[in-house]
Amino acid sequence: MIPRYSRPDMAAIWEPEARYRIWFEIEAHATDALAELGVVPKSAAEALWRWWATNPTIDVAAIDAIEAVTKHDVIAFLTWVAEQVGDEARFMHQGMTSSDVLDTTLSVQLTRASDILLADLDRLLEVLERRAKEHKLTPTIGRSHGIHAEPVTFGLKLAQAHAEFRRNRARLAMAREDIATCAISGAVGTFANVDPRVEAHVADKLGLAIEPVSTQVIPRDRHAMFFATLGVIASSIERLATEVRHLQRTEVLEAEEYFSPGQKGSSAMPHKRNPVLTENLTGLARMVRGYVTPALENVALWHERDISHSSVERYIGPDATITLDFALARLTGVVDKLLVYPERMQKNLDRMGGLVHSQRVLLALTQAGVSREDAYRLVQRNAMKVWESDGALSLQELLKGDAEVTAALSTAEIDEKFDLGYHYRHVDTIFDRVFGG
Amino acid sequence: MIPRYSRPDMAAIWEPEARYRIWFEIEAHATDALAELGVVPKSAAEALWRWWATNPTIDVAAIDAIEAVTKHDVIAFLTWVAEQVGDEARFMHQGMTSSDVLDTTLSVQLTRASDILLADLDRLLEVLERRAKEHKLTPTIGRSHGIHAEPVTFGLKLAQAHAEFRRNRARLAMAREDIATCAISGAVGTFANVDPRVEAHVADKLGLAIEPVSTQVIPRDRHAMFFATLGVIASSIERLATEVRHLQRTEVLEAEEYFSPGQKGSSAMPHKRNPVLTENLTGLARMVRGYVTPALENVALWHERDISHSSVERYIGPDATITLDFALARLTGVVDKLLVYPERMQKNLDRMGGLVHSQRVLLALTQAGVSREDAYRLVQRNAMKVWESDGALSLQELLKGDAEVTAALSTAEIDEKFDLGYHYRHVDTIFDRVFGG
Amino acid sequence: MIPRYSRPDMAAIWEPEARYRIWFEIEAHATDALAELGVVPKSAAEALWRWWATNPTIDVAAIDAIEAVTKHDVIAFLTWVAEQVGDEARFMHQGMTSSDVLDTTLSVQLTRASDILLADLDRLLEVLERRAKEHKLTPTIGRSHGIHAEPVTFGLKLAQAHAEFRRNRARLAMAREDIATCAISGAVGTFANVDPRVEAHVADKLGLAIEPVSTQVIPRDRHAMFFATLGVIASSIERLATEVRHLQRTEVLEAEEYFSPGQKGSSAMPHKRNPVLTENLTGLARMVRGYVTPALENVALWHERDISHSSVERYIGPDATITLDFALARLTGVVDKLLVYPERMQKNLDRMGGLVHSQRVLLALTQAGVSREDAYRLVQRNAMKVWESDGALSLQELLKGDAEVTAALSTAEIDEKFDLGYHYRHVDTIFDRVFGG
Amino acid sequence: MIPRYSRPDMAAIWEPEARYRIWFEIEAHATDALAELGVVPKSAAEALWRWWATNPTIDVAAIDAIEAVTKHDVIAFLTWVAEQVGDEARFMHQGMTSSDVLDTTLSVQLTRASDILLADLDRLLEVLERRAKEHKLTPTIGRSHGIHAEPVTFGLKLAQAHAEFRRNRARLAMAREDIATCAISGAVGTFANVDPRVEAHVADKLGLAIEPVSTQVIPRDRHAMFFATLGVIASSIERLATEVRHLQRTEVLEAEEYFSPGQKGSSAMPHKRNPVLTENLTGLARMVRGYVTPALENVALWHERDISHSSVERYIGPDATITLDFALARLTGVVDKLLVYPERMQKNLDRMGGLVHSQRVLLALTQAGVSREDAYRLVQRNAMKVWESDGALSLQELLKGDAEVTAALSTAEIDEKFDLGYHYRHVDTIFDRVFGG
Repeated sequence: MIPRYSRPDMAAIWEPEARYRIWFEIEAHATDALAELGVVPKSAAEALWRWWATNPTIDVAAIDAIEAVTKHDVIAFLTWVAEQVGDEARFMHQGMTSSDVLDTTLSVQLTRASDILLADLDRLLEVLERRAKEHKLTPTIGRSHGIHAEPVTFGLKLAQAHAEFRRNRARLAMAREDIATCAISGAVGTFANVDPRVEAHVADKLGLAIEPVSTQVIPRDRHAMFFATLGVIASSIERLATEVRHLQRTEVLEAEEYFSPGQKGSSAMPHKRNPVLTENLTGLARMVRGYVTPALENVALWHERDISHSSVERYIGPDATITLDFALARLTGVVDKLLVYPERMQKNLDRMGGLVHSQRVLLALTQAGVSREDAYRLVQRNAMKVWESDGALSLQELLKGDAEVTAALSTAEIDEKFDLGYHYRHVDTIFDRVFGG
Repeated sequence: MIPRYSRPDMAAIWEPEARYRIWFEIEAHATDALAELGVVPKSAAEALWRWWATNPTIDVAAIDAIEAVTKHDVIAFLTWVAEQVGDEARFMHQGMTSSDVLDTTLSVQLTRASDILLADLDRLLEVLERRAKEHKLTPTIGRSHGIHAEPVTFGLKLAQAHAEFRRNRARLAMAREDIATCAISGAVGTFANVDPRVEAHVADKLGLAIEPVSTQVIPRDRHAMFFATLGVIASSIERLATEVRHLQRTEVLEAEEYFSPGQKGSSAMPHKRNPVLTENLTGLARMVRGYVTPALENVALWHERDISHSSVERYIGPDATITLDFALARLTGVVDKLLVYPERMQKNLDRMGGLVHSQRVLLALTQAGVSREDAYRLVQRNAMKVWESDGALSLQELLKGDAEVTAALSTAEIDEKFDLGYHYRHVDTIFDRVFGG
Repeated sequence: MIPRYSRPDMAAIWEPEARYRIWFEIEAHATDALAELGVVPKSAAEALWRWWATNPTIDVAAIDAIEAVTKHDVIAFLTWVAEQVGDEARFMHQGMTSSDVLDTTLSVQLTRASDILLADLDRLLEVLERRAKEHKLTPTIGRSHGIHAEPVTFGLKLAQAHAEFRRNRARLAMAREDIATCAISGAVGTFANVDPRVEAHVADKLGLAIEPVSTQVIPRDRHAMFFATLGVIASSIERLATEVRHLQRTEVLEAEEYFSPGQKGSSAMPHKRNPVLTENLTGLARMVRGYVTPALENVALWHERDISHSSVERYIGPDATITLDFALARLTGVVDKLLVYPERMQKNLDRMGGLVHSQRVLLALTQAGVSREDAYRLVQRNAMKVWESDGALSLQELLKGDAEVTAALSTAEIDEKFDLGYHYRHVDTIFDRVFGG
Repeated sequence: MIPRYSRPDMAAIWEPEARYRIWFEIEAHATDALAELGVVPKSAAEALWRWWATNPTIDVAAIDAIEAVTKHDVIAFLTWVAEQVGDEARFMHQGMTSSDVLDTTLSVQLTRASDILLADLDRLLEVLERRAKEHKLTPTIGRSHGIHAEPVTFGLKLAQAHAEFRRNRARLAMAREDIATCAISGAVGTFANVDPRVEAHVADKLGLAIEPVSTQVIPRDRHAMFFATLGVIASSIERLATEVRHLQRTEVLEAEEYFSPGQKGSSAMPHKRNPVLTENLTGLARMVRGYVTPALENVALWHERDISHSSVERYIGPDATITLDFALARLTGVVDKLLVYPERMQKNLDRMGGLVHSQRVLLALTQAGVSREDAYRLVQRNAMKVWESDGALSLQELLKGDAEVTAALSTAEIDEKFDLGYHYRHVDTIFDRVFGG
């Protein structure tokens, strides 16, 4: 966890105190269920909740001190709670195993983390929609291979990002379901010493599903899917961040990250406005992706369980969710305040002397009866002249002066092919697909 | 693609001929739609289908030869088709861009691959269910950390695998949906030169959804999610394969991969029966996982598209699906014919002198009013003697001879704690969760 | 292995026939050593070499057919050789285990692959040096964050690439040593049935070192290091490829991949010259990197060995080396024939109205006694005007009109700060560091 | 950084204060060089060192507060130093760029981290050597595929680990060299405003090499190689950890992690001694490996530099080195105190009824003139009986009762093949290779 890439709500989920609070709730709910089943006295459960109602401070240091001796975290916690609550606490944890607590806690933490991330995505989607609609018809050049292709609008770029992040939201909602399970099933998952109804009760109270088959641990394919999904979302962040970085290049400069007046870009070059936020997002995306493989390697535990997954999760549980939360919020800010320069977009659009319309001419020639090969040759020979002039010559004019072309297409027909509006006839269709009718 | 790890149906999807066949269908369906819209003559579409009805051989070598000159695969293909079909073919591909064909083809290939993989999973689930039910109550020791824990049944192990692979089936079905989209949207996705109705028609004919916003290419977050899902499934394969490898260890030998009479384990050690299939599956899982990161890195294409994803997909499209198909089939075979040794399972269960029942004794002592700490101490001191005797002493007998223990528990109560059946009271519950009531 | 990304020499290393030839040589050299030690008759070794001298065709299909029955590749091979050579062949493979042959063969293949890759790097270095020297003083703008920074030369860019690939060459030479070992040590590496002198003899004949401790297999940390090194080289390829892709962007266009007259960039946009080779290299780099993790996962084999590494190596052995060989050759071609546009470089350099010289002015002001903070403020306020004029205004002129600036610096001093040559005073130093004096 | 997986010396390298101390030293050494060159007054350098000699506390919070305003870390630091040192400090950082400081600092941190890791490896090698020699001739069964193969000694297992970690030490020493470079070359690496002699001076003072070509930043192939090397070392850790985990399995139990008297294995099963340290190491290895790919992705920065690598390095710089340091120390402790059970090793060796000697018999039969196929058949038919008896029958006795066998080998010859010592004739050779003569 890197403080500079953390936001407080997400970080709080992973604080020791938060973890202990969840532990307590699991134990206390389980004790309720055990009391209901007559396994332990009702007074035991009551004692726990009575103490809890005093809103006690969790003394993390004291628990750590006990763990230093017992070398077992859950025992240390139970010992400390017993010291606080008194004799009745001995009924806690009846028939349960440490992983019942640890794994269910991780489920709670990951579902809470998911909820924050889903809200992050909602805010991002909101901002993307607003800015997409704002620039629905702002002309800009579409580029394939970094080379000018045909006109698009800046709003279309953001609409695509919106569609992509909406898919990511749906994926995350699925992934949240995947890890929202509760296991209270004892040492090897047979419920030998704990009735399945305890699990059902705790699951219900925590808003989790029951884990159909646990084996001391909740199976790690669930977590693997969760972290893999975060990796996909991170990659989409990288895509949009890369777009901004490209647009802010000196030679392109169609958009810029918001530049606060007091901000210095560089100690050496005061004129520089660097896309440092989106470069940073590119790096953060690498990290979130980097956590996918360890999560996948965690699946193949030995027999009913080994504990190799645990250290991995101590890293990636906080690091992947905190980093992604931060990155989504940062990306939302970047999009929200992005400085967009429509004049520059138009200028760039125009700089290629109309080459971007060559596809339409090619098509018109074919439709006018010229063979595909000939049409290609005709457009290409004029296009090459424009290209070599670095945009000084105009394709439109050259074509009108090419007898082989004008044999097939009239001047008016040629002119019509250079109409920008033509390219935007279906923008509504696309916006309807993304944002509804 | 490694022939030894390929099965013909999956491999066929990735053959050049299969790809060209899909190309043709996309082009011909698109021509139908264009004709319907009055953009091209109906005779053009008819000519294409008429030729197709002759069930023509795709001359891959001829197309390759054209590509060697044009250095453009789709143009090469169109040129070859035009040579076959004649003049009418010039109306093909009107307003479309190569990626319209290439990306939609990849969608068709990946959905076909998904269908095979879903069927693979169905077969695996079937076999897992059969063998799980066969061994529903076959006692075996549950192990955490590789150390004997408490009894489970062999059927429970397989039921857990069943639940895991059923989750994987659901994930794959989602991933299939993710990549089952069609884009016919032109050079930068604006439908500038091709009506959206063409896309809708082709999508419908191919059983795909339309891509809401494409940008010459279908966005690669879809494919990233697809390959990430394959990586999760591969990790589950590794888990079950690892289980079998452990069970076949000389000292454990509770199960073995089927050993065909003619098979030689080793040129040097004729007695050896090595779990080579599951070791192989472990390696194959590493490969399928290895394809996840390149797929994630493919997402952040530049602007409307760059072609860096393409070479990656030429590898991982076939390699990931073919390898996973092979691995699932191999795993199904392993489970189907797995030699299971219940006597050995029982023998291993018994070898620890009853230590595996210590948890129940611990609990009984606590319930009898002994403090948690004392109960732990009492059980531990007897357990250590058994442990040090390497199973020669019996915990049951030792406890019955420990006055502090018998002060809390009667002999009958102690005996009752060593009843194996106790652990299996909830097997039905778990099986119901997995296989239905 | 993707034929389109393969070159014949590297591919040949991984052909079944090549593998069998190495197998034979190992077996025959080993038989020599065994004969020398008196373990087998000299006639046995002679029979083998006599047959080999006939330059026999390796009948891959026949060996495969035997393997289909025995399910053991080395036994199948030995059986087939015995069929060819006759009775004397039974002395082959005395005391050896299959892995002695398989692992040593892999070492031979990887060292041969290394030799090709080292030669590839040599050619790349040669081309980089030539082009670096050609453009040693070709002015171009240096960019940080994609934003214009200060002038560099195009030769410096290539000199940096040269230094980077020379490091890669040194790394690969180390990695080659790492995997150039021979193990002929029997079933668990104890030489129980084969004298260590056999290993020494075979190693010597094949140009390999002996493996100090093998355990049936050569330890896989060696191979992991090898493939990790390929991953680093691939990443350097991606860096240079990315540079070219950026330089070829429409708005930048300072360099282009060579464009052969017959080549068509796109079916739809005939004017487009896309950096498809370097985009392709970007994708290939992802693949070679993707093979690193499976190689790392191969290290932790169980006990003396398990065979999980084998399937991984069947993929990545060929795929990583063939792909990297192809990529290095492609990159060499790109650099060799790169179209460089110095006029455009100069034009881009000039487009920022001299802002790139602001750092020198800042420094001069500080040296003239202005505080760092004030100097920064003075430069910044003029720079911002230039920036907002999109390069129409000149920083040089603005500064000369700013009284606070001219209070510290004379007009001549200001002019001197805008001298491009100033930036190139140390180019010789850097070139000397890279290419020698 | 996870406190529980951190050791103080390594963690200290990554503390903000340590970083600022290195910053200061770089700046002060650079000021010395600048003064020597006459660029700044000698008094400026003297003022810096005079202040430094007071051993000032670095006020991290104060610097952070300045950064919160300037949004630039190096400017914040310089501002704070200037506040402490006074007016002379304005000469600091003349002609330098932030990355000169940042990147050289990272080099210092990574070389210091390397030195700790090298020392860690030295301690591990020491312990491995001691324990290898202690168990040089402790018989134990060698296992391939988890199946008993032929005898080895426990010392051989550790000797192999020693050889592997010695290779890792050599690799790390190379990787250390790779990242031990200094760059003080200005905004784009041209030394435009800073003489190369400044770089040389600072490099010399810090024990670094000069970076031949930097481009504001030190090229990231160096760091990629560094982190890739850590990934290889982590994989070797996993290998040895996996060996211990296997040996501690209940059924094998040939060795155990040291079990401190106060330690509780499980709240539920007091008899359990779980290999939690080596399971933990397995997880930590996954993490260190997980950092390799982000480091590889960091190589392809845009043009002279972008800052995407920076966030990645804020994570993996500390996380990879701290985790690996911890893991090496933990592994050293595990090996140092490993409880080794030779009697159990012997017992396991004997449990297969002599099957492990079958290879020697097979060989003897061949040497006695029996064809390979027949010899195989003879051994196999007896071996299978032993196998099916679960070790109750003895291969040695069965062979002596098999007429076809005794036709080729005398009873004495058969007995001789079952001599364990035979397998250890070359242990000295192997130990000499690893530990010297």
